[in-house]
Amino acid sequence: MEKIRIAILGYGNLGRGIECAVGQNEDMELTAVFTRRDPSAVKTVSGVPVYGADKLPEKKDEIDVLMLCGGSATDLPAQTPAYAADFNVIDSFDTHARIPEHFDAVDRAAREGGKVAMISVGWDPGMFSLNRLYANAILRCGRDYTFWGKGVSQGHSDAIRRIDGVKDARQYTVPVESAVNAVRACENPELTTRQKHTRECYVVAEEGADRGRIEQEIKTMPNYFADYDTTVHFITQEELLRDHAGIPHGGTVIRTGRTGVDGKHNHVIEYSLKLDSNPEFTACVLTAYARAVYRMNREGMTGCKTVFDVAPAYLSAMSPEEMRASLL
Amino acid sequence: MEKIRIAILGYGNLGRGIECAVGQNEDMELTAVFTRRDPSAVKTVSGVPVYGADKLPEKKDEIDVLMLCGGSATDLPAQTPAYAADFNVIDSFDTHARIPEHFDAVDRAAREGGKVAMISVGWDPGMFSLNRLYANAILRCGRDYTFWGKGVSQGHSDAIRRIDGVKDARQYTVPVESAVNAVRACENPELTTRQKHTRECYVVAEEGADRGRIEQEIKTMPNYFADYDTTVHFITQEELLRDHAGIPHGGTVIRTGRTGVDGKHNHVIEYSLKLDSNPEFTACVLTAYARAVYRMNREGMTGCKTVFDVAPAYLSAMSPEEMRASLL
Repeated sequence: MEKIRIAILGYGNLGRGIECAVGQNEDMELTAVFTRRDPSAVKTVSGVPVYGADKLPEKKDEIDVLMLCGGSATDLPAQTPAYAADFNVIDSFDTHARIPEHFDAVDRAAREGGKVAMISVGWDPGMFSLNRLYANAILRCGRDYTFWGKGVSQGHSDAIRRIDGVKDARQYTVPVESAVNAVRACENPELTTRQKHTRECYVVAEEGADRGRIEQEIKTMPNYFADYDTTVHFITQEELLRDHAGIPHGGTVIRTGRTGVDGKHNHVIEYSLKLDSNPEFTACVLTAYARAVYRMNREGMTGCKTVFDVAPAYLSAMSPEEMRASLL
Repeated sequence: MEKIRIAILGYGNLGRGIECAVGQNEDMELTAVFTRRDPSAVKTVSGVPVYGADKLPEKKDEIDVLMLCGGSATDLPAQTPAYAADFNVIDSFDTHARIPEHFDAVDRAAREGGKVAMISVGWDPGMFSLNRLYANAILRCGRDYTFWGKGVSQGHSDAIRRIDGVKDARQYTVPVESAVNAVRACENPELTTRQKHTRECYVVAEEGADRGRIEQEIKTMPNYFADYDTTVHFITQEELLRDHAGIPHGGTVIRTGRTGVDGKHNHVIEYSLKLDSNPEFTACVLTAYARAVYRMNREGMTGCKTVFDVAPAYLSAMSPEEMRASLL
């Protein structure tokens, strides 16, 4: 069997997750990891070779799909359009508001290069987006709700760490259960930001730091915490490492809607994820879509794609006959 | 705006559901209902004209997509291949074991006629199948579980009605909550038929009938009830009409899987439906896919398709730009 040759650019949590995910797919092989760090300082889990990112052009013919594992703030807006001209690529760009401009830049590059470039792959955007689309197409008269958590928000944890006197921190986003239940009961509630999620913070303070001031600064921080009911727990570094080392996440997309002659029948469509490791699950989604990107480009497709553009069959290693017999 | 012209063949619960669903989609219009009964005896909700099924050939040019609303046992195996040569069609064929042969017969006809024919559209097969495929592609090392209910099984209700001395009956399939919770907790249980679902029967006995014998016949009926814990409640016809007139259904597809270096991280993907009206929801799914069938055929595609072959974007009335901005 000819295997799909995968390469990774950027070897953090997501890159390592892809390395593991590729190992779970028999029709794929990981050929190399590329890094902007000193390659000799990077040790991969599987022992696959590590090269500097500057070596990518010369390895072009050995790579079917390049997985871009950089961040959405500064890495991907530059990297994805730059590499889409020479490689089939996938990224997990997740700045919702900037997706349209990112799409346009990547689409131009991928069309010129005759490649397929997928953007915003993961679970939100990604699987949650797909479920919003399917549910909206099915239940035309209804309402959408997305709840996140319980899970670690890296952005909010970072925001706490920037406060003077904070040594380390972990922030959990927690959906308000009564709100989720009201949605499930088709009550169509109007929910404010505060009514949908709470924020739980575990903070390691520096010795002698004013905890009252830190708590106050967290709870009043605009955008991040001010609009939420926030709880702050001070713990030791040991406790943080022991009890909060993981990166769990998840969430729920719900659409409720009405059908029938007088709209008297209620329906609830719910998709939910409970993930022990946010980056590893995201990696699994990207890896499944790598198969799709490879196949779509082999069929002659080019340009930027999102999860909306990919027929589900492209994701599975099964033949169409097997799929219809075992999954339909 | 040019509207997609929908026609319905077969005006039962599913056909009526499609009539309502089309009314919720601004880019569609219902042009006619076709029936094998006497058309003058059929009154539609919206007042759309009703014709005999024999009039279909002459109305060919007024129909973009023909929705086949017959049953899977005898209607669809004949109807779908017969009409796929002249119409874009959709059916809800749900005899899982016979899908491969149905696919082949329909594919041949649709290719010869240059049409698109979708089979097995609905929620299971349909949305549940899609979720099995996506979850399997993402979590490669894991297990699948499907639970149905709580909901009315038409087939089981019919089986009870065939028992001597039974006037009417309604049967509910109920998932075993402890089994669902064990699956959600990633315990990967091996579940027997009995451990997954129970069956609740509401039976109206004829006057003077032997209730003990009826209950015994239900509980020991092979395939339908013998492998399940079954409860039988005798009620009056009035109670049945008052409390059990609806056709609710639903269910849950769960895949759990492990990722990471030593497979230590668990993940749960869950898709669930809670439906007040099984046929109306099924109708909504078929109607969304009618849009896809119409568009795919206009792009030159032909042949038999399942939900696996349809890129999600084809289902939505939104433009790709709107979709990316509002749903991704």
